[in-house]
Amino acid sequence: MENHTKLYDVGVIGLGVMGKNLALNIADNRYSVAAFDLDSVKVEGVLAQEKADRANSKQTEQSLRVHGCNNLSEMLSSLEKPRVIVLSVPAGAPVDGVCSSLIEAGIELDDIVIDTGNSLWTDTLDREGRYADNFTFFSSAVSGGEMGARFGPSLMPSGNKKAWDRIKPIWEAIAAKVDAKTGLPIERQEPGNPVTEGEPCTTYIGPAGAGHYVKMVHNGIEYADMQLICEAYQLLSDGFGMSADEIANLFERWNQGSLNSYLMEISAEVLKQADPLSGKPLVEMILDKAGQKGTGLWTAVSSLQIGCPAPTIAEAVYARAVSTQKSQRVQLSQLLSGPQAVKPSDEEREAFIEQLESALYCAKVASYAQGFQLMAMNAKERNWTLEFAEIAKIWRAGCIIRATFLQSITQAYQSAERSGVELENLLMAETFSQALSTKQLDWRKAVSTAVLKGIPAPCISSALAYYDSYRCETLPANLLQGQRDYFGAHTFERTDKPAGEKYHLNWSSVKRELDKV
Amino acid sequence: MENHTKLYDVGVIGLGVMGKNLALNIADNRYSVAAFDLDSVKVEGVLAQEKADRANSKQTEQSLRVHGCNNLSEMLSSLEKPRVIVLSVPAGAPVDGVCSSLIEAGIELDDIVIDTGNSLWTDTLDREGRYADNFTFFSSAVSGGEMGARFGPSLMPSGNKKAWDRIKPIWEAIAAKVDAKTGLPIERQEPGNPVTEGEPCTTYIGPAGAGHYVKMVHNGIEYADMQLICEAYQLLSDGFGMSADEIANLFERWNQGSLNSYLMEISAEVLKQADPLSGKPLVEMILDKAGQKGTGLWTAVSSLQIGCPAPTIAEAVYARAVSTQKSQRVQLSQLLSGPQAVKPSDEEREAFIEQLESALYCAKVASYAQGFQLMAMNAKERNWTLEFAEIAKIWRAGCIIRATFLQSITQAYQSAERSGVELENLLMAETFSQALSTKQLDWRKAVSTAVLKGIPAPCISSALAYYDSYRCETLPANLLQGQRDYFGAHTFERTDKPAGEKYHLNWSSVKRELDKV
Repeated sequence: MENHTKLYDVGVIGLGVMGKNLALNIADNRYSVAAFDLDSVKVEGVLAQEKADRANSKQTEQSLRVHGCNNLSEMLSSLEKPRVIVLSVPAGAPVDGVCSSLIEAGIELDDIVIDTGNSLWTDTLDREGRYADNFTFFSSAVSGGEMGARFGPSLMPSGNKKAWDRIKPIWEAIAAKVDAKTGLPIERQEPGNPVTEGEPCTTYIGPAGAGHYVKMVHNGIEYADMQLICEAYQLLSDGFGMSADEIANLFERWNQGSLNSYLMEISAEVLKQADPLSGKPLVEMILDKAGQKGTGLWTAVSSLQIGCPAPTIAEAVYARAVSTQKSQRVQLSQLLSGPQAVKPSDEEREAFIEQLESALYCAKVASYAQGFQLMAMNAKERNWTLEFAEIAKIWRAGCIIRATFLQSITQAYQSAERSGVELENLLMAETFSQALSTKQLDWRKAVSTAVLKGIPAPCISSALAYYDSYRCETLPANLLQGQRDYFGAHTFERTDKPAGEKYHLNWSSVKRELDKV
Repeated sequence: MENHTKLYDVGVIGLGVMGKNLALNIADNRYSVAAFDLDSVKVEGVLAQEKADRANSKQTEQSLRVHGCNNLSEMLSSLEKPRVIVLSVPAGAPVDGVCSSLIEAGIELDDIVIDTGNSLWTDTLDREGRYADNFTFFSSAVSGGEMGARFGPSLMPSGNKKAWDRIKPIWEAIAAKVDAKTGLPIERQEPGNPVTEGEPCTTYIGPAGAGHYVKMVHNGIEYADMQLICEAYQLLSDGFGMSADEIANLFERWNQGSLNSYLMEISAEVLKQADPLSGKPLVEMILDKAGQKGTGLWTAVSSLQIGCPAPTIAEAVYARAVSTQKSQRVQLSQLLSGPQAVKPSDEEREAFIEQLESALYCAKVASYAQGFQLMAMNAKERNWTLEFAEIAKIWRAGCIIRATFLQSITQAYQSAERSGVELENLLMAETFSQALSTKQLDWRKAVSTAVLKGIPAPCISSALAYYDSYRCETLPANLLQGQRDYFGAHTFERTDKPAGEKYHLNWSSVKRELDKV
């Protein structure tokens, strides 16, 4: 811990797997870092890791850039002013805990604290106000898991614009990069040798809370993406008797086509993985109870509160919930009948594989349509101006849902912008409406097969119902409004009268008169 | 407004359609009522209505029992102590507004204020505490719409037990009644001649908030029930070319069987109704945009927050949301392709009608299973003891979801109780597991037909995915946990190791080691 007189560029508080990797990423990009964690073992860990990385790297410059701090006062006094401090602590109370400690330790008004955790966006909103008299509370959601944090995540900053100007160069340096021409990620995972060319996966999202909101929806989409792949896995395995290895090979093939995505790639890797203990496919040894940390359900909750249809995302959250009720399922599997299992022929399997590829693509488009519409509706309510082409762009690399597909979404929004139309729903973009129109028959066949075989595919099938609902000029909500008027005098509008005019039929009288309310 | 010296039994504040009818119902049951509304026209309205009702009734006793008050002080001084005051004002700020005014007007500690609106249960919880120093804040959700309020609703009281003792005789008098032997509602809608025999549809639900929670879930189930009927309507109409009248006749037939319910009954009535303006079926003149007031979405939100799978209820909420986006649908109906329409034969139609009847029944059971499990999970979290047999009992009459079906649920819980088992999921009850096992093939065929015909049936099909998910001893959440461990080191449990032991595979190293965490 030499160099006490030198001032450091960036502080990092919280050296768990994400904080540690962010610190190393920042250091790789030639910024000096003052790092602190309540657990001094973690402080030592990041210093040791930097040393090890440097020893293995091709970098000629050997000086270390991460400095460990013993406490927050020491960190504050070792940072260049106005200070830039990256917080990487669990969402919720710990964030406020650190903020209070920073105030005690003498943080100053111009200093910037960046919350990089998965905070609930409304908490972020509150915090910007709460700490305004003490320092600038800024937030930047991070996606990409531990490898993203280490070698280039997708970063969703929001809050005070002046703070963003100060942070921007650092953020653009550490973010994942995309080849501007192809829209593809520039992948490189070498300590000390970060990617410096290409378009950085970060953009200013909007006022306080906007970044965390967008990240929350990113995670909601991620839930759906993951569940869709899992449904495909179960259909192929339980419905068509394919082994984990065969499915892995199929997923690898799919990953070369329109279904290309990081999640498809790692699903293939997981399926190929042998269990070190038993030698069997690891996936078959993993307990089928899914965990969750909140962002998926927050997305679904927000969609319900705002009145944005996001059934595929909600179904993905519920699928995790059902998975945790293992003992109920074991019991019910004995009580509830399904269809007789029929051994499919090779031709049937091949046909189904093709249908399923279409189904997955279509359901994926539907989930993204839900997520983007949700962001748009919430932005309207909050008076945020979100640039959806930019948001799609920064999701093309670094983050968990990265996929070539995001390039199509980027282009859809760019083209809508050029034509001066608002893309209320992604399904309206020609590229998607045409693709789905072409693939919808296969999608239907895949869902029908799942239904008749008795294999649950809640996300693939709810996405189809979503698609079909939007295809309906007229939905049966007319009957529903009739019911509501009947039992609750909730009134209805008429197709032959101006919008907003409310009518009520006097259902309980003998002579049922129509009243304009 | 004579009789100023006489003290009245019950105060009613808020004389909208619900409050007015509750006041008249209470008066029919020989309690005297002091009624108040900020709008004096509404006060006059309830007095005039009582007079008119009395003139038409067969009651020999002619004295009027509702007294209009000019303000809250007058109401307080005209009520028997400890006072019982029924609040019927919109949920939210108005409830607290009236409570403040009552404190100003001199309400006393022993007095009881009963919130009968559709308040959010957590608000009710807060209010019990907030007003504890001023009066007893009690709550009793009411279901049954305007006719229920007038002639017998289902009442879900909760809060202070002592207050309940005071209220109970009034509540049991005004509630809907069920024939103890048959479990069927005793229907009578005659002013001045209330039903006095049978089992009253009210029971003490639990501590503050419990009643509103249970009512909220009732409404969530109601959303699903209504949407299921609407999906059947659309399938029969768009998919099989049946007219509103033909569907009404079918619904009437179904209402005689296992699908019997108040909602099925009124749906038939709505479908049969001619439009007084055009002479066409009224339903075809009603705009297909569904309104909502919050309880359905609160139910779905609660299920997400608590981790209880309730996809059919959530899909019903989303179906209303899609319906409101009419202009998007009109646009998308031009852009998105569906399958070629094929004219079905009479035989196909008849076969489908049978399948659909099974599908509706099964999906209905699934929605109720979701609602009851949600109540159970929330009760556990809040430490409430809910008596589900009693809850099912008080829903057999008076409320919007009343149906013979509730008698089966009552019996399922009673029989579980007798055997000393906890019914974690309604699907575990023999009566339902057997019925669904028998009907599941038809259910699948109906969903498959909807899917292949391109007609959205989000609730019927999500309920089937729910059923099939619970039939799975193993769900693909094993792959999902593998994905999560891959990108986020979220760890997994193993099928061959004790529950709770967490493992992580070191995915990013060349030699992928398994660590016990």
